[in-house]
Amino acid sequence: MHKFDLREKFASFSEHWRPKVVAGLNGQELKLVKVQGVFPWHHHDDVDELFLVWRGRFRVEFRDHVAELGPGEGIVVPRGVEHRTAADEEAEVLILEPAGVRNTGNVVDEHFTAPQGVRI
Amino acid sequence: MHKFDLREKFASFSEHWRPKVVAGLNGQELKLVKVQGVFPWHHHDDVDELFLVWRGRFRVEFRDHVAELGPGEGIVVPRGVEHRTAADEEAEVLILEPAGVRNTGNVVDEHFTAPQGVRI
Repeated sequence: MHKFDLREKFASFSEHWRPKVVAGLNGQELKLVKVQGVFPWHHHDDVDELFLVWRGRFRVEFRDHVAELGPGEGIVVPRGVEHRTAADEEAEVLILEPAGVRNTGNVVDEHFTAPQGVRI
Repeated sequence: MHKFDLREKFASFSEHWRPKVVAGLNGQELKLVKVQGVFPWHHHDDVDELFLVWRGRFRVEFRDHVAELGPGEGIVVPRGVEHRTAADEEAEVLILEPAGVRNTGNVVDEHFTAPQGVRI
């Protein structure tokens, strides 16, 4: 039961596309990620995924439309829906999803697939 | 797959201690609540609860200590742990927990127990 500070947590790492677990509860994880560039297209078979922007501008791209998100804006990507995420400049994003989700979903990518369960 | 904007959502209601569901995923709900004053002591038998402050200052009080939280600060209250929340001035807080949780946990309070599952 220790509080966490998102500013401090985001300041403690610099890599892009490497989610860090800041809190776990009810089998879910709240993760922080810094992003810049374009992530691979993928989907998650059994997992809905919530993105909430903390700082910067972030895109969640679907095959038929793009959601452009700024600070305080979020979206739920339902299970099974193909998507990719992108940011022209560095952005800081919260992710909420069940514990143990592979960030690239159905895809394994040498560069983008990240270790799971990394606490911060 | 529509984005939501926390600023807009918070601006759309004014009651205190009445959580609104802004997103549902994987059996969980992300809720917004405005708070001011002191909430009753309670616990949740089977539910961990995450609080994350969006605006203002917010306290999560335990029997043996108090967590003082400002914007961007959060805490997980584990299941079974007695707590109450409080704010001297109005604050805006995100709550993450499973769907269908009674806000007052093991307590039913005429004033504070709120309807569940109210979407915003």
